Amino acid sequence: MAFSVAVAGASGYAGGELLRLLAAHPEFEVRTVTAHSNAGQRLIDAQPHLRSLAGLTLVDTTAETLAGHDVVFLALPHGASGALTAGLPPETLVVDCGADHRLESEAAWAAFYGGDYYGAWAYGVPELPVPGGQQRTRLVGARRIAAPGCNASTVALALAPGIRSGVIEPEDLVAVLAVGPSGAGKSLRLPNLAAEILGSANPYAVGGLHRHIPEIQQSLAWAGAANPTISFTPVIVPMSRGILCTATARIVPGTSDADVRAAWQSAYADEPFVHLLPEGRFPRTNDVLGANTALIGLAIDHAVGRVITVTAVDNLAKGTAGAAIQSANIALGLPETLGLSTNGVAP
Amino acid sequence: MAFSVAVAGASGYAGGELLRLLAAHPEFEVRTVTAHSNAGQRLIDAQPHLRSLAGLTLVDTTAETLAGHDVVFLALPHGASGALTAGLPPETLVVDCGADHRLESEAAWAAFYGGDYYGAWAYGVPELPVPGGQQRTRLVGARRIAAPGCNASTVALALAPGIRSGVIEPEDLVAVLAVGPSGAGKSLRLPNLAAEILGSANPYAVGGLHRHIPEIQQSLAWAGAANPTISFTPVIVPMSRGILCTATARIVPGTSDADVRAAWQSAYADEPFVHLLPEGRFPRTNDVLGANTALIGLAIDHAVGRVITVTAVDNLAKGTAGAAIQSANIALGLPETLGLSTNGVAP
Amino acid sequence: MAFSVAVAGASGYAGGELLRLLAAHPEFEVRTVTAHSNAGQRLIDAQPHLRSLAGLTLVDTTAETLAGHDVVFLALPHGASGALTAGLPPETLVVDCGADHRLESEAAWAAFYGGDYYGAWAYGVPELPVPGGQQRTRLVGARRIAAPGCNASTVALALAPGIRSGVIEPEDLVAVLAVGPSGAGKSLRLPNLAAEILGSANPYAVGGLHRHIPEIQQSLAWAGAANPTISFTPVIVPMSRGILCTATARIVPGTSDADVRAAWQSAYADEPFVHLLPEGRFPRTNDVLGANTALIGLAIDHAVGRVITVTAVDNLAKGTAGAAIQSANIALGLPETLGLSTNGVAP
Amino acid sequence: MAFSVAVAGASGYAGGELLRLLAAHPEFEVRTVTAHSNAGQRLIDAQPHLRSLAGLTLVDTTAETLAGHDVVFLALPHGASGALTAGLPPETLVVDCGADHRLESEAAWAAFYGGDYYGAWAYGVPELPVPGGQQRTRLVGARRIAAPGCNASTVALALAPGIRSGVIEPEDLVAVLAVGPSGAGKSLRLPNLAAEILGSANPYAVGGLHRHIPEIQQSLAWAGAANPTISFTPVIVPMSRGILCTATARIVPGTSDADVRAAWQSAYADEPFVHLLPEGRFPRTNDVLGANTALIGLAIDHAVGRVITVTAVDNLAKGTAGAAIQSANIALGLPETLGLSTNGVAP
Repeated sequence: MAFSVAVAGASGYAGGELLRLLAAHPEFEVRTVTAHSNAGQRLIDAQPHLRSLAGLTLVDTTAETLAGHDVVFLALPHGASGALTAGLPPETLVVDCGADHRLESEAAWAAFYGGDYYGAWAYGVPELPVPGGQQRTRLVGARRIAAPGCNASTVALALAPGIRSGVIEPEDLVAVLAVGPSGAGKSLRLPNLAAEILGSANPYAVGGLHRHIPEIQQSLAWAGAANPTISFTPVIVPMSRGILCTATARIVPGTSDADVRAAWQSAYADEPFVHLLPEGRFPRTNDVLGANTALIGLAIDHAVGRVITVTAVDNLAKGTAGAAIQSANIALGLPETLGLSTNGVAP
Repeated sequence: MAFSVAVAGASGYAGGELLRLLAAHPEFEVRTVTAHSNAGQRLIDAQPHLRSLAGLTLVDTTAETLAGHDVVFLALPHGASGALTAGLPPETLVVDCGADHRLESEAAWAAFYGGDYYGAWAYGVPELPVPGGQQRTRLVGARRIAAPGCNASTVALALAPGIRSGVIEPEDLVAVLAVGPSGAGKSLRLPNLAAEILGSANPYAVGGLHRHIPEIQQSLAWAGAANPTISFTPVIVPMSRGILCTATARIVPGTSDADVRAAWQSAYADEPFVHLLPEGRFPRTNDVLGANTALIGLAIDHAVGRVITVTAVDNLAKGTAGAAIQSANIALGLPETLGLSTNGVAP
Repeated sequence: MAFSVAVAGASGYAGGELLRLLAAHPEFEVRTVTAHSNAGQRLIDAQPHLRSLAGLTLVDTTAETLAGHDVVFLALPHGASGALTAGLPPETLVVDCGADHRLESEAAWAAFYGGDYYGAWAYGVPELPVPGGQQRTRLVGARRIAAPGCNASTVALALAPGIRSGVIEPEDLVAVLAVGPSGAGKSLRLPNLAAEILGSANPYAVGGLHRHIPEIQQSLAWAGAANPTISFTPVIVPMSRGILCTATARIVPGTSDADVRAAWQSAYADEPFVHLLPEGRFPRTNDVLGANTALIGLAIDHAVGRVITVTAVDNLAKGTAGAAIQSANIALGLPETLGLSTNGVAP
Repeated sequence: MAFSVAVAGASGYAGGELLRLLAAHPEFEVRTVTAHSNAGQRLIDAQPHLRSLAGLTLVDTTAETLAGHDVVFLALPHGASGALTAGLPPETLVVDCGADHRLESEAAWAAFYGGDYYGAWAYGVPELPVPGGQQRTRLVGARRIAAPGCNASTVALALAPGIRSGVIEPEDLVAVLAVGPSGAGKSLRLPNLAAEILGSANPYAVGGLHRHIPEIQQSLAWAGAANPTISFTPVIVPMSRGILCTATARIVPGTSDADVRAAWQSAYADEPFVHLLPEGRFPRTNDVLGANTALIGLAIDHAVGRVITVTAVDNLAKGTAGAAIQSANIALGLPETLGLSTNGVAP
């Protein structure tokens, strides 16, 4: 009855979160977990928090080990999924948590990533708009899905409703994100060391360099922006997970406060996982830790003519693995919320 | 079909964790949430991470508001449950997360807590030994249960197998615990401020003053110790949740390494929530964050003749709310593991 | 030879930092430390990190206890210094670390603080411009100095050079700050608890509500902006100290990259405590922990036509107590850098 | 006038702390900074917090670059200093912050470190006892000094007074330490990543495996213990710096409480950097952050017959670099406290 599942890159942080969520999902059965340097190891040794999957052993990541499953989740470094996926039959649902299939623009791919370009897949943020509808529609029945970049989907969820409804200007957007270091993966580099991050706030990719920028622009273009521009600055702060995104936009002159608020309210009124908080309330990342929820607080600053949105997302959950599973639910015709929690682990 | 549930003290940290776990439990339906100063507030305003319970409103904590439920969980300050509980019918399952009903010794209660003594209830750590068996047996069919102190149950789980099997001496035990500040609750005191705790390790209750000491001794006495003595020192460290307990005991001279290890191995071999890790492996608190799991690593230090156990527990989950629900499952004849996860949220 | 000093509010975080810095200053001798609820206590009990001042005892904060010193530093809640200061002779140097004397606009005071207005004093950020010169000039010989708000001075240092030199537009500025909770003082409120802040990023005063906004506008007006507007959002992150300010402004069309960079380069070239980092480098708050240094990194994002500045400051040091002592050095004719370190405590 | 100084391993954490302290020292002038893989880089790029040394450039670590200085501080990986030092003239003061010259027992060296053994130097913890006196005496005029292991010196300072005075038994000691990850250096290993450490408490080297154990035993033997044994467990907690050591020992039967306390009181009464706190008070690591201070709190637990000491030390300051400079002061005939602060950076 359940769908058989393979997870590639199961020894990493995104792979671990996929497995944590899959273990709680009633319709997915994890049969195969793969890794590269950790192949041969017991999964529990690489992911000691996943007690319920203690019986699994990591095998090498190859087209062969991934074959024969109903669903394959890929949590691999950028550039690794293209060739791997080519060997999988078209009826297999493949959900890629890497960047390889997110961008429709080959030029943007070349400018921010480089290497072979394999084309875009259905984009795994169901709540975002596309011309004439929602990403959700494109995901129904899809067999190739690109899970979003965690920062990119957070910013897009924060700003898309205002663009779609025409209440904010799509140029000169500004977003500054406080992010946890798990987004960088298990990468053994000096800036990722605990002693570098504890007690400190550390910016990176300042000045329009971050690879998620074209992905944000793509989502905002789908929302109706002709040529969206955004200043995007991420700051690493000492929490293992979480994104707190402060994103602002100029309000189109003459728009009433009620219309501004209504844009977000109506966009997410029926969404199970994205919520606009009541006026005067703003989210904390703790509120969504481990959850598939994006919480948005919104303020209007008349003195500057801007709407300020503050959005909290767990980068590994709703930002990556949760989005992947939510999208897989849709693709397979399962209830969209199946196996996903809206409740955070706090404090 | 489901059991109707009330949670008293629902605006605090322990109350919030009870609700988070209850929300994921298929046989419990939370009907009533109570608080004191927050009564009248929407639950979601006090516990913004509990999206799935956003429809609930906090009412005052009284015998009346708690009446008429199948199960009542109390997450109240010490001393508050005695009078409240007196008004509840004996067939209602009452699980108290406070200290009021943990100690069988009125003298110990008077020495460490003081105030009216209301007697001991079934102790909510099923895996611990009692003379001739396990606490689990006492919990079957119980209608009054005392959930454990988080530090106390952690230390007891760490040391009881060695005492029960006679491989360690029950005197001169030493335990030092790294603990997160959520165990102190939402108490507005200077030592609980973030600026006092961030970047620092802060001891408290040094020198045998901690209130969990008699509770530990009681558990170790149940395990067979005539007069257990333990040096117990908690240290607050900058993580919101978690207990990492380093507990050591002298090995009874002449005991083989295999026999030492076998004591813990056999005690927990069939337990779903308490695990002895393989030789050379030790747990981290991240591995059990949000989970109902206690992980134990064990080493034998021949140079000093001691066994060293390192045990990781989430103080709010397996340490409090998870233990409460696990015990309620047993009391009500439900599968013991129902609604409880063994997987931590890491990293 | 040394100047005799009294510190009011010596039991708080700002008071403690003043004392830490004063203890290392060769020309200041702390004679009197005052507090309110802690009066009568030994200083070392309230500030156990200040071993070298262990001989001092806290006395009540009154005009009498503060009288008879060459220099009086006030680290009191807003509104407390006005009446106190009235009783001190005009030749006493009074440096107020509260907000009472920062704003020249009584209307701004009324709008953001309220209560009696006592007028503005010389503003304690020597590096900032004023019409025709620098704040430094106004501080020479001053006997009443208002130390800056930590967030306000950070934002002003980040943006003033661009405004002064005309390379950025002074409207539609955007600043988002990651800040440590020590800025909130020893205030016993729920949002300041460690369990609320650990592992989380928490916004506050979103939407133009923060009290430092008029202070920022005042500094930018001094730099030459007719009517500066700024969207300002602070985010509490889990580090005890530090401000990492990401502040952006639109570049005046037609300005060359070199001219943009030169604005900041020339403004701070001779400053001992404010530094523009080389191109491509950005500061972390760890780099300035405990130091009187502000480090600024600057990037130009052509895609959005904005300059992005990232500025790191220790809120208690350069942001408050260091600024106070630096300003006192100037006022008293001492070397400006005396007793102040440019080196941070990292990692 | 000042002594010329070279620091080898200047790009690491211990090297950085040496430089931070040396920069504030009136009699040391840093002329040369060396590194291995970072050679050729500006020091400020490797240590961006050391603004006052921005003019220095890292050169390769060789006997040649280290030659010609009055004092050479070595902050190198274990095993690297032996050959390097052989080339330095005997009149040069060499202070090694590595382990190479700490152990007098070649057998202990072989058992815990291995590789070539180069013999022991004067041990850089002046406050510790040696037969008939103090380490301080051995440091006077010394030209070869081994700075201590941070954990080892902390435990030794905590327990030596009780052993020296005969009030505690030197066997079956137990020490559990909460330690920050900077002690592991800039080592690019998975357990050192921020995502592994944030929000978690992680034990390591459990069961008598830690390399500092023989160093502790050596110090306790110097204090008079014939055959000291200690169970030693370090736990990494999420603070960048700091050691909080809980060390316990059985009190010799018949000893009065006053005699126990007097042992520590008299040992440290005249020490500038090691302090016994008043009864009922215990230190936090924040209290000593950046300081050359060790603070000790002491409790007697009659129920278990043990003294419990809690000692706070900054692992990089008093634990390593501060001890090195304090010892160098003594060796060179400078005032012992010169350039060293007793005040911590808190909060």
